[in-house]
Amino acid sequence: MASFCVLDEFEVHKNEEFLRIAEELKPELHEREIRPLSMVKVEKNEDGDTFVTDEKAQDTLKYRVFKKDESVILDFGTHYVGYLTLNLASAGSHQDAPAYIYVRFAERLDELTENTEEYTGWISKGWFQEEYIHVDVLPARLELPRRYAFRYLEIKVLDVSLKFSLVINDISVKAVSAVNDENIQLIKSDDAILRKIDEVSIRTLKNCMQFVFEDGPKRDRRMWLGDFRLQARANYRTFRNMSMVKRCLYLFGGLTFNEGKIPACLFLEPEIEPDDTYLFDYALLFGSVLLDYYRATKDQKTLEDLYPIAIRQIEIGLTYLNEDGIIPDRSGQFWCFVDWGDGLNTQAASLAILIYSMRYGIRLAEYMKDDKTIHWLTEKMEELKRSAVDHFWDGEQKLFVSGEERQVSWATQVWMILARVFDKEKNRELIIHTIEVNPEHSMVSPYMYHHYIDALIRSGERERALEEIKNYWGGMIKDHADTFWELYNPHNKYESPYGSVAINSFCHAWSCTPTYFLRKFYISEFE
Amino acid sequence: MASFCVLDEFEVHKNEEFLRIAEELKPELHEREIRPLSMVKVEKNEDGDTFVTDEKAQDTLKYRVFKKDESVILDFGTHYVGYLTLNLASAGSHQDAPAYIYVRFAERLDELTENTEEYTGWISKGWFQEEYIHVDVLPARLELPRRYAFRYLEIKVLDVSLKFSLVINDISVKAVSAVNDENIQLIKSDDAILRKIDEVSIRTLKNCMQFVFEDGPKRDRRMWLGDFRLQARANYRTFRNMSMVKRCLYLFGGLTFNEGKIPACLFLEPEIEPDDTYLFDYALLFGSVLLDYYRATKDQKTLEDLYPIAIRQIEIGLTYLNEDGIIPDRSGQFWCFVDWGDGLNTQAASLAILIYSMRYGIRLAEYMKDDKTIHWLTEKMEELKRSAVDHFWDGEQKLFVSGEERQVSWATQVWMILARVFDKEKNRELIIHTIEVNPEHSMVSPYMYHHYIDALIRSGERERALEEIKNYWGGMIKDHADTFWELYNPHNKYESPYGSVAINSFCHAWSCTPTYFLRKFYISEFE
Repeated sequence: MASFCVLDEFEVHKNEEFLRIAEELKPELHEREIRPLSMVKVEKNEDGDTFVTDEKAQDTLKYRVFKKDESVILDFGTHYVGYLTLNLASAGSHQDAPAYIYVRFAERLDELTENTEEYTGWISKGWFQEEYIHVDVLPARLELPRRYAFRYLEIKVLDVSLKFSLVINDISVKAVSAVNDENIQLIKSDDAILRKIDEVSIRTLKNCMQFVFEDGPKRDRRMWLGDFRLQARANYRTFRNMSMVKRCLYLFGGLTFNEGKIPACLFLEPEIEPDDTYLFDYALLFGSVLLDYYRATKDQKTLEDLYPIAIRQIEIGLTYLNEDGIIPDRSGQFWCFVDWGDGLNTQAASLAILIYSMRYGIRLAEYMKDDKTIHWLTEKMEELKRSAVDHFWDGEQKLFVSGEERQVSWATQVWMILARVFDKEKNRELIIHTIEVNPEHSMVSPYMYHHYIDALIRSGERERALEEIKNYWGGMIKDHADTFWELYNPHNKYESPYGSVAINSFCHAWSCTPTYFLRKFYISEFE
Repeated sequence: MASFCVLDEFEVHKNEEFLRIAEELKPELHEREIRPLSMVKVEKNEDGDTFVTDEKAQDTLKYRVFKKDESVILDFGTHYVGYLTLNLASAGSHQDAPAYIYVRFAERLDELTENTEEYTGWISKGWFQEEYIHVDVLPARLELPRRYAFRYLEIKVLDVSLKFSLVINDISVKAVSAVNDENIQLIKSDDAILRKIDEVSIRTLKNCMQFVFEDGPKRDRRMWLGDFRLQARANYRTFRNMSMVKRCLYLFGGLTFNEGKIPACLFLEPEIEPDDTYLFDYALLFGSVLLDYYRATKDQKTLEDLYPIAIRQIEIGLTYLNEDGIIPDRSGQFWCFVDWGDGLNTQAASLAILIYSMRYGIRLAEYMKDDKTIHWLTEKMEELKRSAVDHFWDGEQKLFVSGEERQVSWATQVWMILARVFDKEKNRELIIHTIEVNPEHSMVSPYMYHHYIDALIRSGERERALEEIKNYWGGMIKDHADTFWELYNPHNKYESPYGSVAINSFCHAWSCTPTYFLRKFYISEFE
């Protein structure tokens, strides 16, 4: 299913003062020169997995000459975001034709065995990181202008001529990020997989931190509010780049639309602009980002500037309630994200997220000493908790249901727990019962898994949460993740919401939160 | 058959003084801004011909929006050489994915219906004028860095996204040439086809005149001595850009190799360098270029500088003679060009070209008052004329034969006539007899046709020569030539020495000489 939103009457309200504050906080990027570590050969096996069949030191590369249809795959050792420079030359007679080359960048080995021409998914194939390049004059220093996210680089000679061959004298990458991980200490666990999860989380976060918190440096390359919220949480426990969180808060606050809604995502170029996409849950979670930021910084000015916008999102959210005190079902639209996964009914979760956001609103109002708001929000929140139970609790199944067809999903239970519709003990029973029942509508995205882990911890299931982190994010590591992925369904390794796993993003912001959990809730164990 | 030469022990002798003279004569290019005239649709019919099925004014282009897989073909009205700038924008929601476009430049309509991926010829497919381009940020002013030769431009949207479309706001080309044709008067013939032949010849020459006399601005893009000789002849009758001829003479003279041989071609970038290709006939014809130049300019200094090099080529040519006083057959190698065409035996023609070059050498020696050279060259030339007749004249067939299998070809007769092995009357009989017999090994390239026309005129067959110009070059015009082609075999329209007609060059220097013939030999008729 193609999931996108186009708003017909989309009127952006720019707050120039907020945008000025954001612009002043635009970071200088750190740059680091990287070279490939080795040359590899890959193959796809019968299960569809791609693996390395041969590996050689890359220092012999410059002695190779490439004729037509010859290629090489370079391995940079781990995931980077940056700009490629190739130093190319010719061997044999004088170059008498353009050297025509194909380059492909891959975050994962699987992308290297994918035929991009066969892709028929609904998002643009322009996202495949591949280029066809004519080099008219050799030797040449070829600085590719576009930015890529990758660990592997394939260079294929589509043609040279019978008189000359291509020589690759040097390959370098200017890797970029707004942060530097040199001073980040990894956790001191005895458990290698936890140390690795921490490391990969931090690399994921780092590679997504560019001029803003991007969602994925390979694909999308913009800032989604839902991802930003989780990135900021991981950032407080690692890089502590407070000014970037502030910058992004002001960007969202400075680019509202129509009734004051916060857009689900912002584009960065040619200038920062909102997407005409409203996601009910993302907009409501703005208050959560603001609260996290305030707690991390005590930055009263930012709280005061943005508090009205956070509260406004709740007010707007409440306008969607019907007379029964629930949100009508809009699961067929790209309107309340919750999770990827075909057929997920989001009606109950959308109410839960509204309730959740109200609790954050109350906390913000407390810091603002805004008693009036505390009062009405509290009253309304309790009312909605009751209608959540009245409409969606199935006493027989002991699970929440959603939509007309009374769908039972993991997502619904998780958000009802996070909304604290029940007390902690009942939430604990609910999450354990959910695990036992294992509803068919499972979780797909690390974004949803983040909320599941959060729900476990908040219900007192700390140990189980740690196990699930190890299972889920550890599963990606077993599948050779250098950075955590946009999508990971342990039950369907090749799941993609876009029609091909090769177009998935394999360094994706919303997947970086294990480091947040480990460092916030388990830190005493690692000291 | 792949036709190329690689010399193993290739040692370039640079004459820095000559190269300095050449460098000082490097022209400034004239630039002109061009825009497309119309949008066309094309189709291929059962005969394999591509034709226009629909044409619209291009001024409606900017109102069109392009979704995935939509394309447009722009017609610039005639052939240009230059640099493309596209002004692109988006329509719909904010651009949320790279716009991925394909552009293809075509000198002829046929190139637009060719699938370049199916090309398996022996020269580089890098010569196809096509690019795959990702445009990350719209609006964009896209200045393509490479130079193209074309009349038609196809732009195809490979992908955008479901949220936005591509808009093409403006397309412009900076057309370049070392010369300006504004002051060139076309011939005043009543015959429309002759006027058109003159016009197309001049455009061909103009578009090949860049920093040197290039052979083809689409493909090869270098200076071949054989093409240069014909270009210079056409130039004396049209643009009269003497300094460019001088520049190119000094370049060849300044870049000899091994025993002092002149290379068959020069590369222009990254700096001017000779190709490691020796073509026996091309090297010998250097003296002919020098003589033409001296007669056009009376530039004594250039004659004195380059005369020894011209004579040296003849001396080298003579070293290839065997004890029978003929050149051994090397038709299997790319050693003596003569013409394209599979299976052409060049043994007899190579001797004829040696004799021809000696006559030019004698004329040069006369201008140099070098009696010693006049003497030995004359003596040797007469000796070789006798061995040409002894070895290659077939008295029964009344035709020259070539090679062990005694092949009869047009090329052999033409070059024997130009070598003046016989007197004018016998030459006239020979060319008429050749026309009657019509040997199976016909002529393929306009380069060879040039020499055929020359042979007709020199044999007194002026009217027939004019008819043949109208038939041959007029044939290309009937096939919609805006510039004359590298290859034109009236008996096989889709002949290519490279494996596909789409990779042929359709603006090719050696094809520009009708304007030379018309203006040199027929000018009184046009006044």
